Amino acid sequence: MKHFLSTNDIAAGEFEHLLEKALAYKAERHVTNELAGRSIALVFLNPSLRTRASMQVAVFELGGNPVLIEPGSTSWSIEYSDNVVMDGNRTEHIAEFVRVLSRYVSAIGVRTFAGLKDWELERTDPVLQAFVKYSSVPVINLESAMHHPCQAMADMMTIRERFGEARKKVLLTWAWHPKALPMAVPNSFALAASQMGHELTIAHPNGYDLDSELVAQVCDSAASSGGSVRTITDPVAGFEDADVVYAKSWAPPSFYGKESAVHDGQLRDTWIVNSEKMARTANGIFMHCLPVRRNVIVTDEVLDSTNSFVIDEAENRLHVQKAILATLVR
Amino acid sequence: MKHFLSTNDIAAGEFEHLLEKALAYKAERHVTNELAGRSIALVFLNPSLRTRASMQVAVFELGGNPVLIEPGSTSWSIEYSDNVVMDGNRTEHIAEFVRVLSRYVSAIGVRTFAGLKDWELERTDPVLQAFVKYSSVPVINLESAMHHPCQAMADMMTIRERFGEARKKVLLTWAWHPKALPMAVPNSFALAASQMGHELTIAHPNGYDLDSELVAQVCDSAASSGGSVRTITDPVAGFEDADVVYAKSWAPPSFYGKESAVHDGQLRDTWIVNSEKMARTANGIFMHCLPVRRNVIVTDEVLDSTNSFVIDEAENRLHVQKAILATLVR
Amino acid sequence: MKHFLSTNDIAAGEFEHLLEKALAYKAERHVTNELAGRSIALVFLNPSLRTRASMQVAVFELGGNPVLIEPGSTSWSIEYSDNVVMDGNRTEHIAEFVRVLSRYVSAIGVRTFAGLKDWELERTDPVLQAFVKYSSVPVINLESAMHHPCQAMADMMTIRERFGEARKKVLLTWAWHPKALPMAVPNSFALAASQMGHELTIAHPNGYDLDSELVAQVCDSAASSGGSVRTITDPVAGFEDADVVYAKSWAPPSFYGKESAVHDGQLRDTWIVNSEKMARTANGIFMHCLPVRRNVIVTDEVLDSTNSFVIDEAENRLHVQKAILATLVR
Repeated sequence: MKHFLSTNDIAAGEFEHLLEKALAYKAERHVTNELAGRSIALVFLNPSLRTRASMQVAVFELGGNPVLIEPGSTSWSIEYSDNVVMDGNRTEHIAEFVRVLSRYVSAIGVRTFAGLKDWELERTDPVLQAFVKYSSVPVINLESAMHHPCQAMADMMTIRERFGEARKKVLLTWAWHPKALPMAVPNSFALAASQMGHELTIAHPNGYDLDSELVAQVCDSAASSGGSVRTITDPVAGFEDADVVYAKSWAPPSFYGKESAVHDGQLRDTWIVNSEKMARTANGIFMHCLPVRRNVIVTDEVLDSTNSFVIDEAENRLHVQKAILATLVR
Repeated sequence: MKHFLSTNDIAAGEFEHLLEKALAYKAERHVTNELAGRSIALVFLNPSLRTRASMQVAVFELGGNPVLIEPGSTSWSIEYSDNVVMDGNRTEHIAEFVRVLSRYVSAIGVRTFAGLKDWELERTDPVLQAFVKYSSVPVINLESAMHHPCQAMADMMTIRERFGEARKKVLLTWAWHPKALPMAVPNSFALAASQMGHELTIAHPNGYDLDSELVAQVCDSAASSGGSVRTITDPVAGFEDADVVYAKSWAPPSFYGKESAVHDGQLRDTWIVNSEKMARTANGIFMHCLPVRRNVIVTDEVLDSTNSFVIDEAENRLHVQKAILATLVR
Repeated sequence: MKHFLSTNDIAAGEFEHLLEKALAYKAERHVTNELAGRSIALVFLNPSLRTRASMQVAVFELGGNPVLIEPGSTSWSIEYSDNVVMDGNRTEHIAEFVRVLSRYVSAIGVRTFAGLKDWELERTDPVLQAFVKYSSVPVINLESAMHHPCQAMADMMTIRERFGEARKKVLLTWAWHPKALPMAVPNSFALAASQMGHELTIAHPNGYDLDSELVAQVCDSAASSGGSVRTITDPVAGFEDADVVYAKSWAPPSFYGKESAVHDGQLRDTWIVNSEKMARTANGIFMHCLPVRRNVIVTDEVLDSTNSFVIDEAENRLHVQKAILATLVR
C-alpha cells in the first residue's frame, strides 16, 4: 500500500491488521516514535472538525508534526488543469504544490469534497488523483468526492468493538438534508462493510442510487468476503432485525450540475431515523459520521440513546488514522 | 477544581498556590513534561492574539500539543439550542462537537465573546456552560461573555510582582471606545482583586454599572478576604493615591440588543487615562488587558511610561496559564 | 547578525557558513535540539505555501514550536502609525503586538507584501522596520516589500549545488503577469547573486528598472565579490551562454499608487521563457521562486524539463531557514 485512497487499496489481511493495530493504539494511548522527526501535511480544501483535530492528534501521538495547509485561504489557490495558460485567478499549479510539499513532509493528507457540478468528472476523483500523480510521498484520502476511507475504517472498528468479528446485519439508510451532500461516506461505508463480510442493506428513495460502478465493486467485495448486498427503496424494511443502522444523506448523480436541486420535502419525515424504526432492530446500534443534523437525519431520542455509537465512531477516527499513518510512512 | 471558568472556582489557598506556581514557571522557563503526550483543544469563536499565542506556547512548554479549532471557519458552525430541528445554517450541535473533542484531547479551552444581544441570556454564559455540560475533560475559559479568569490571574500576578503580597489601592476605571465591548475583563478583574483583598474602586459613568449579581459576588469576596469595594462615577477621584490603575471599556446591559448603541462622545476626553490623572496616584502602575486603543483609552505618554505594566501583564498570561493547565490536567 | 532582514545583513564569510550549514542539514535530515523548548512566531500578513510550510517544518526539525499568527484574521488588525488616535478599525498597535510576542517567543518571522500604493514609503519597509523597532528577539524577514532573503539564500544554495563554488553567468529576467507584483524577489536575488560573485545580467522592458538604490547596492556587492552586473532591455540576449535563468515578474515604481496599472499585453509573448530561449543557454538551469503561472511566465516544456530546478529551489528554503534559525536564536 503506497497510498491510502480507498479501502479498496487494502488487501483483506491488511484490513484486519489495521483494525487490530487501531484497537491496540486505543487500548494503550501514549506517544510513540513511529513518526519521530516526520512532518505530515494536512491539506484542507473544505472545513472539518473530526478529521482536522484527530489527524493533528494522531500525528502528534506518533511523535510527528502536523502541518495544516488551506489552499485559497492561508495558502495560494490551486490550478488543476494540464496545459493551461494560467492567466486567471488560480495562482499555483497542483504540479508544483504537491512536488514542493513532497520535499518538506513524509506524507500528505488531503480533504476535497465533491463540487457537485459534473458527476462523470468528479467520480474519477481528479483532485485526489492529481495529488497522487505528483506526490513522491504517501497520499492519504481525508475525504474525496468518491471516498472517505478513514471514516469507513473507523466505522468498521466501531462495529468490531461492539459485535466482535461476527457477520452482522447492517443497514445503510439515506436521510433527508437541507443541502445536497457528496456520496463519499456512503460509498466507503458500503465498500468496507462488504469487505468485512457483513450482510448489507442499502436503503434509499427511488432515484438515489449510488454510483453503479461503486455498487458493482461492493458486490464483488461481498462475493469475496462471504457477505451480501441488497438495495431497497422501502424506508422501514431495512430496520427489521438490523444490528447496525448507518444513516447518511447524499445527493444522487442527477443533482450534479443543478444548483437548484433539492430533496423532496416529503422524504424528510419518511426517512428520518426515529425510535419507532429503531424498535424494529435487533437492539441495533445507531451510527453516523457526524456532523449530524438533529431531528432532521435522526431524532434526539435515538441520537442520545445508549444505542447511539456516534461518539465512539468519531473517537475511532483517531485510532485508525494512527494505524494508517504508522503503516504508510516508513 | 474540575473546570476553570472564573476565579470564583478557586479557593483562597488555591489562588495563592496558582500564583506561586506561575511565578516559578516564570523564574525558570523551560520545557516540562506535565502535559507530555496530551493534546489540548483551543476553540476560538473570536479573534485573539495573546490568548492564542500564549496558550500555544504554554501547552508546548508543558510538553503537550495545542490543537486550534475555529468553528464557522476551518471547522463547522455550531448549534447551541436544545430540542432544535437543525434544518438551518448551523451544521453541528454542541453536544457532538464537545463530546467528540473530549475523546481526542485532555482539556478544552474556549473563547467566546458576548454577542451583546440579550443580557439576561448572555450573563449566564450559555456557550461556556454548554461546553461544560458536554465535556468529559476540563474546560478552560479563555474569555466568555461574563469572565476572563486567565486575564484576571495574570493581572493579580502582575500586581504581586510589583507590590508583593500587600493590600493595595486598586482603581478599575471605565474608558470610552469606538465600539461596544463585553464586560468579561472588568468583571473578572474586580472579582480577583477583591479575592486578593485589595482596596478596590470601580469608576464608571452613570448608567455603566457592572452586573448587580457580579458586584454582589465582588463584595462578598472582599468581605471574606478583608478587602473593600466602592463604586464611584467621578472620572478623577479614584486616581488619588492609587497603586494600580486598570483601564477598560465596557458596554452596560442597556446596550445589549441595541446595535446602534454608542458611547456618548463627550465621555471620551473625560475618561481617558492621561499623565495628569496618573500624577495623582501613589506612583501607581498602569494596566490594561490589551489590545488597547492608543490615545483613546490611554495616552501614548502613559502607555509608554515606565509605570506602564501592560507588557508584563500580557507575558504573565503565559505563566498563569501554564499553572492552570498543569493543575487541571491530570 | 541580530536580525535577518536582507542578505545585506550577512558578512561574506557568514554567507558561506550559512550555505554550508544548510547543505549539512540537507545531507542529514533529522531532528536536532537547537530550538529545543523555543517557540517561534510566524506572522503572516499575506498568503503563503512554501514559507508557511517550510518554516513550520524547519522549526519542528530544530526541536521548536511554530506559532502561526494571522493579523486581521485569527488575530487583531494592526495599526502601524505613531502618535495616532486609534478610533478607527485598527485594533492593536504594532508596539504592543511585537512587544508582547517578544515575551512569548524566541524569534519572530514576518511576511508582509508590498501594498503597491506608495513606493517611496514602501521601499523603506515600514512594516518590517516596525517589527524590528519593537522586538527584543530576532526578526526574520519572510518577505517584505523590498526583500525576500530566505528565498535568495535558497536560490544561492541551489546554484551552489548545481555548479559548485564557480562564478556563473546568471540571468535575472522579467516576465509578464496578469497582476502587478512586488519587487522583493528580484531585489534579493540580484543582491545575493552579486554577493556570491556571479556574472549577473538583469533583463527587463524599458521602464521596469529596479530601485536605483538597490541596484547601487548590487553593484557595490559585485565590486567587492569580484562579480559583475549589467542591465539590458533585450528579452533574448541575456540567455546567450547563461548558466542560470531566473524568471520573475515585478511591477516598477511607476505602478505604485495606480490600481489600474497593468503590464502591456504585448510584453507577454516577448518575455515568456520558452525552449527556444533556453536553447541559447549553456545548458542552463531554469529557476523561479514559485508559485509560477504556467505558460505565462514560462512554458510547460521548460518548467517540466530536467533543467528546471524550481522544486530543488523550494526544498532548499527549508534547509537555509534551518541554518538561519539556528544561527539567529541563541
